[in-house]
Amino acid sequence: MGIQFSNAERAEVLVQALPYIKRYRGKIVVVKYGGNAMTDDALKQQVMEDIVLLRLVGVKVVLVHGGGPEISELMDKLGKHPEFIDGLRVTDKDTVDIVQMVLAGKINKTLVNLIEAKGGRAVGLSGIDGRMIEAKMKDPRLGYVGEITKVRVSPILDLLEKDYVPVISTVACDRDGNTYNINGDTAAAHLAGALAAERLILMTDIAGILRDRNDPSTLIRELTVKNAENLHREGVISGGMIPKVECCVQALRQGVKNTVIMDGRKPHSILMELLTDEGAGTLIVNG
Amino acid sequence: MGIQFSNAERAEVLVQALPYIKRYRGKIVVVKYGGNAMTDDALKQQVMEDIVLLRLVGVKVVLVHGGGPEISELMDKLGKHPEFIDGLRVTDKDTVDIVQMVLAGKINKTLVNLIEAKGGRAVGLSGIDGRMIEAKMKDPRLGYVGEITKVRVSPILDLLEKDYVPVISTVACDRDGNTYNINGDTAAAHLAGALAAERLILMTDIAGILRDRNDPSTLIRELTVKNAENLHREGVISGGMIPKVECCVQALRQGVKNTVIMDGRKPHSILMELLTDEGAGTLIVNG
Amino acid sequence: MGIQFSNAERAEVLVQALPYIKRYRGKIVVVKYGGNAMTDDALKQQVMEDIVLLRLVGVKVVLVHGGGPEISELMDKLGKHPEFIDGLRVTDKDTVDIVQMVLAGKINKTLVNLIEAKGGRAVGLSGIDGRMIEAKMKDPRLGYVGEITKVRVSPILDLLEKDYVPVISTVACDRDGNTYNINGDTAAAHLAGALAAERLILMTDIAGILRDRNDPSTLIRELTVKNAENLHREGVISGGMIPKVECCVQALRQGVKNTVIMDGRKPHSILMELLTDEGAGTLIVNG
Amino acid sequence: MGIQFSNAERAEVLVQALPYIKRYRGKIVVVKYGGNAMTDDALKQQVMEDIVLLRLVGVKVVLVHGGGPEISELMDKLGKHPEFIDGLRVTDKDTVDIVQMVLAGKINKTLVNLIEAKGGRAVGLSGIDGRMIEAKMKDPRLGYVGEITKVRVSPILDLLEKDYVPVISTVACDRDGNTYNINGDTAAAHLAGALAAERLILMTDIAGILRDRNDPSTLIRELTVKNAENLHREGVISGGMIPKVECCVQALRQGVKNTVIMDGRKPHSILMELLTDEGAGTLIVNG
Amino acid sequence: MGIQFSNAERAEVLVQALPYIKRYRGKIVVVKYGGNAMTDDALKQQVMEDIVLLRLVGVKVVLVHGGGPEISELMDKLGKHPEFIDGLRVTDKDTVDIVQMVLAGKINKTLVNLIEAKGGRAVGLSGIDGRMIEAKMKDPRLGYVGEITKVRVSPILDLLEKDYVPVISTVACDRDGNTYNINGDTAAAHLAGALAAERLILMTDIAGILRDRNDPSTLIRELTVKNAENLHREGVISGGMIPKVECCVQALRQGVKNTVIMDGRKPHSILMELLTDEGAGTLIVNG
Amino acid sequence: MGIQFSNAERAEVLVQALPYIKRYRGKIVVVKYGGNAMTDDALKQQVMEDIVLLRLVGVKVVLVHGGGPEISELMDKLGKHPEFIDGLRVTDKDTVDIVQMVLAGKINKTLVNLIEAKGGRAVGLSGIDGRMIEAKMKDPRLGYVGEITKVRVSPILDLLEKDYVPVISTVACDRDGNTYNINGDTAAAHLAGALAAERLILMTDIAGILRDRNDPSTLIRELTVKNAENLHREGVISGGMIPKVECCVQALRQGVKNTVIMDGRKPHSILMELLTDEGAGTLIVNG
Repeated sequence: MGIQFSNAERAEVLVQALPYIKRYRGKIVVVKYGGNAMTDDALKQQVMEDIVLLRLVGVKVVLVHGGGPEISELMDKLGKHPEFIDGLRVTDKDTVDIVQMVLAGKINKTLVNLIEAKGGRAVGLSGIDGRMIEAKMKDPRLGYVGEITKVRVSPILDLLEKDYVPVISTVACDRDGNTYNINGDTAAAHLAGALAAERLILMTDIAGILRDRNDPSTLIRELTVKNAENLHREGVISGGMIPKVECCVQALRQGVKNTVIMDGRKPHSILMELLTDEGAGTLIVNG
Repeated sequence: MGIQFSNAERAEVLVQALPYIKRYRGKIVVVKYGGNAMTDDALKQQVMEDIVLLRLVGVKVVLVHGGGPEISELMDKLGKHPEFIDGLRVTDKDTVDIVQMVLAGKINKTLVNLIEAKGGRAVGLSGIDGRMIEAKMKDPRLGYVGEITKVRVSPILDLLEKDYVPVISTVACDRDGNTYNINGDTAAAHLAGALAAERLILMTDIAGILRDRNDPSTLIRELTVKNAENLHREGVISGGMIPKVECCVQALRQGVKNTVIMDGRKPHSILMELLTDEGAGTLIVNG
Repeated sequence: MGIQFSNAERAEVLVQALPYIKRYRGKIVVVKYGGNAMTDDALKQQVMEDIVLLRLVGVKVVLVHGGGPEISELMDKLGKHPEFIDGLRVTDKDTVDIVQMVLAGKINKTLVNLIEAKGGRAVGLSGIDGRMIEAKMKDPRLGYVGEITKVRVSPILDLLEKDYVPVISTVACDRDGNTYNINGDTAAAHLAGALAAERLILMTDIAGILRDRNDPSTLIRELTVKNAENLHREGVISGGMIPKVECCVQALRQGVKNTVIMDGRKPHSILMELLTDEGAGTLIVNG
Repeated sequence: MGIQFSNAERAEVLVQALPYIKRYRGKIVVVKYGGNAMTDDALKQQVMEDIVLLRLVGVKVVLVHGGGPEISELMDKLGKHPEFIDGLRVTDKDTVDIVQMVLAGKINKTLVNLIEAKGGRAVGLSGIDGRMIEAKMKDPRLGYVGEITKVRVSPILDLLEKDYVPVISTVACDRDGNTYNINGDTAAAHLAGALAAERLILMTDIAGILRDRNDPSTLIRELTVKNAENLHREGVISGGMIPKVECCVQALRQGVKNTVIMDGRKPHSILMELLTDEGAGTLIVNG
Repeated sequence: MGIQFSNAERAEVLVQALPYIKRYRGKIVVVKYGGNAMTDDALKQQVMEDIVLLRLVGVKVVLVHGGGPEISELMDKLGKHPEFIDGLRVTDKDTVDIVQMVLAGKINKTLVNLIEAKGGRAVGLSGIDGRMIEAKMKDPRLGYVGEITKVRVSPILDLLEKDYVPVISTVACDRDGNTYNINGDTAAAHLAGALAAERLILMTDIAGILRDRNDPSTLIRELTVKNAENLHREGVISGGMIPKVECCVQALRQGVKNTVIMDGRKPHSILMELLTDEGAGTLIVNG
Repeated sequence: MGIQFSNAERAEVLVQALPYIKRYRGKIVVVKYGGNAMTDDALKQQVMEDIVLLRLVGVKVVLVHGGGPEISELMDKLGKHPEFIDGLRVTDKDTVDIVQMVLAGKINKTLVNLIEAKGGRAVGLSGIDGRMIEAKMKDPRLGYVGEITKVRVSPILDLLEKDYVPVISTVACDRDGNTYNINGDTAAAHLAGALAAERLILMTDIAGILRDRNDPSTLIRELTVKNAENLHREGVISGGMIPKVECCVQALRQGVKNTVIMDGRKPHSILMELLTDEGAGTLIVNG
């Protein structure tokens, strides 16, 4: 990036970040990473830089990731054709193996590798390790689609204590050795709740919650749980935004301080969200 | 298994295991898992039972795994055709992605899941996590085939301290974010050395080192490094056995107490090796 | 010990002990040691082996002992003639000195020595050390027969943390420097309660609680506190069994998980009780 | 502070500070504070902001201060007239009392108060507390002018561990209860040496070491100890710069990684020195 | 020190102090130091000896000091003339600077130096350090006279844990960087309360609470809070004794075990108070 | 005890003990207890008081005891007649049982009880516990008379850390479960060496080393190892004093700071030795 700052300007900017750093220092922030920020390589590099910086200034970032597009891609290559029941994808044994392989093997380790290449220290785990996320079958017709039944976060806390960035793949296990595909936002919300996180950030590919879906200038910057319910009834919150808002509400109920549905398409959006006065997206808080 | 013992007999057997348990209690044992013990499902279940039991009686087992056959299988399915230079497989970027995915995603998490289903507690990591295994390119013509340059075992020690069985996939990283395929036995030997392990166990599909390759009754039960060199010269140690013996010798030089090339085809071979007077395979010791 | 097992059989037995080891690992088990198991030398050796093995697999065994026959023997040799009031032995100053000497000096140190000779690590203490067991006089006419008023278990917890087997003599003290003879079963029950033990084992010289005293095949394998009260009323629990059952009930009320009146005449009875599905004697549980 | 940055620019600047933060994180930096940066109120506020920010991003700053002008001012008000022997100020008992009072009472606590008002956490100590700086009389004719004989830094390490900024007044004590006035730069160098600091920063009111004293563009940005000796011989390092350079050389010999004679007149000079690529003043390193 | 004791007598005296040492060992005793014991040099030396001895035998002494006479003296020398409103001294910015300088710079460090010269280890702090004592303005007309709003004792606890005697100057701060002059007895009472001290000792220049103010033989040796209230109504407690008794009552309410208004004019009065059966002054206890 | 001191005198005495307390605080002092101080009840009470006081002021006292007279007494009562070979007592199995019983059971627990009755905290161990003292047979004709082969002091260090006074019986064990009678002074010297004690005190029933055995006024107050050798050659050190001096010399060689052969017949001799300027007996130091 071609921007040139004098060193005095740099110092000035750093000093202005001070109150934000103070606010998040030593606090846990769970980031559900996905969308463009994961597929666009430049954005991906910036997200990793942001995470390394936040860790350095003392923020305990936990990176949670899914990986829909890469799963579909590998299924395609392997000639697996998706089946649907009532609009939901059937996940047979082979499919869940592919999910596990792509999430815990490909994406997870690639993210860990990137964070380390940026100078950070990371360790990647899945919901299977240390039985962090236990699930049961949601609906036998859907196969290995899991509903979370229990969350254990002690391996994450151990890693945070040793100064690693924990990178978590959203697959789950049960006591019989099965693996389940689970929804990434839901998993992030459960983990944030169990970690009593200061903030849960859900990255998306839209500007946030818009009063008029076609006009980005109608972005709602802050919302209480109560307002959210009203907006849902009014139809302002609709479609794919509904489950995201539900995740936020659930996390807030489990003790997360506040939650953000963040526009992941902006460069350094996480840093801007946490260390400046602007934020990026819609903040949802208790009330 | 249909064997029936009286409880008095059971007690007797347990008491007879006492000196062996005492010997390995609190000690680190690195097991390089592979071969039939990994492909035969009954054997796989028994290995996991052995590991859970050993952990319970205080042995700090570290399970290191590769996964050749499953890698080849997925490559096949994806239509990748192996190329060779001087008999060594060329590992391009796509291939190393497949290796990472199968080892760190599929096999690693499946083993973790199995250990947990047997009642143990496990966490799976790869050489990328916490930059545990750093490597460089061996030969540019071979692509991402790595030669180990540095090993960091603190994440393994942290897991052992928290009573988890660490399950380690043998892929490595460098400082630029690349992944390398590395030889599993070599990785296990390096880790055992850095962990100052009490014992390194390399599982194979033969009875051990045989004086007469066609006669299992000529099994050499114990060997010094010096004897091993002589047997190499004499041609008794040959073919695929040569690099395995070299791994043992190198581990011994780095401070591992002793090493075993073990017949993984026998049921409960690890338990027999560690907790009875018989052992299974060939023990190689300093001297 | 003529039994011969193949190593495969041994491995099988060890694996079958796994769920039991898991259950007791890290838990405190208080064993009140006495009767034939203490006077028969072969049984004594086996009890010590059992304890060393249990400690090795992670069970925190606390060995509590009395020593009636040896006390009487020394009194005899010293020409002391027992006096009785209402059937209870009068314990004058000289007698309590003999009790202290035999329990804390002879038996305690001999047991410690034996455990160490079997490869364990042990430290012997009495109720006087660290004022672990404080008592007051029960009845002035009986002299130094004590009733427990306070129990302090921190020295036992310190020893367990350092991996020693604590061996405890059942003599007590008061704040004026007096020593008291106390009932061994009662002391074991108090200690088990204060330690929140997983299990209290009282060793005896009968098979357990029998519905028909003359027919060992009428052994009651499990009993609730409520059942025990009924059996007492019915006269099934009678004589010397009454105070033993009372000790168990009291320990259960103080938070001990369950209690066993165990037949100490069987070889390796402790191991069979804890690590097999059979048990040895009568289990008494809450309810 | 009229500069306006967009949040994207802010994020960019923060990311660019990453390698510098990484370098100094967890490291001890001793800042000898004085000159204009101490008398000019705007600069003083900025120094305190810099220190609070550095502490937040993990740099262990130790602030060492003298206070010449305020001492002279109070002496004046109290009608004390300075006496000199061979150009050195005679420090009688009354004078050293004033020094102690101004440094440890006025300046020290005012700095602590300021750091706390900026949102940091600070504790102020003097060389008397915990006998951190022991001294002896340099020359009886000069009175209580001290020469450092011993340095104890454990109280500073305790404060750093508890996340406080230690603020240290440069007065010393002896074993008879006397107080000594000591040179601030020398004290800072001794403390930095004993703390094995990563960097010692001596603030001054000039640009650094200039090849041509009248031309700021001749600033020497980096210097080895050897070069410094040559420049001294050549007369480039002269006057008040000589003892400052000597302090740096001594600190380097005691194990401080590198030292800076910094221009304290620039806004946020400490931040620029540590967190940008420019630095402010002359860096002196071993070699 | 002309008294001569035989060594046997010395041993006897030491043994007789045993129950008192046992009582205060490991307990926190807050001593508000002032009056003659601070201005008379021989008494001052003895107080410091007492404190060093008490620390050595395990009593956790916290020394709190004011310094009225020295403040007045310096104000005089600087030509500042006290102003009063309703009998209370007006404390302008200059005056509070003088207070801070004398208390935190002169007296505090001189006491630390003395304790260390007697062989103890001490560290001096003020209410500003670590924001230990926060205050707000009592009455704008009086200027920087503070009313305590919050007390933080963690720096004192850290020093006690490291075996230092904490010496505390009674100045306070607010969140804007202002310093306040606060009443020494009140500060000591607040600190004692927050420290859950075993005893608060307020040193004065009278024998204690006298029934007849002119007759020292009417000293009241012990008093409950209830009695104190009655004596106040009866006019026995009057004048300067009223606020002292109020401090004691407040400390008792905050959990201090007991409080003493002690005659600081007697040699070694603290030692006599704590380590003999006599005490020195009036003990006030709950009830 | 009729001595009456004023409280001012008491305070004075306590203050005078200050430098001695400082010297021994946190240091380990091993006291070999025996002779009149053990048989005379008044002296015994005083020794226990001394030990409790020393522990309270921070001296880490380890009490080591033998018990010759009580062993002989019980042997007598049991009709055992001592046999001698070359002047050394033959210790058969029965005799060593008696030794173990009297030392570890009677004397040890009685001392622990006494210390606790004086307000101290004590735990009694023998050389068998934790295999603290291992020995082998000195001469088969003598039976179970042991020569020390190994000393393990970690149980003593654990007790000191938890603030208990360790009370140690001088019996030893071997790896086969045998008990040995060992010389008490030798055992104390070995333990002091392994503990790197500040001081070893051997209590005796004479004034110390006398130049003229019949004239107590010829007591030698201090001696170097070299002087001791000369005095031995000159015959001044003779008889029972020879092995005691040898124990001291050996302890000094193993790193004990200094050693004392102390007159145990004086009241509070330990306190006088450690906390006054006089001492009691002969000090032997390196040189």
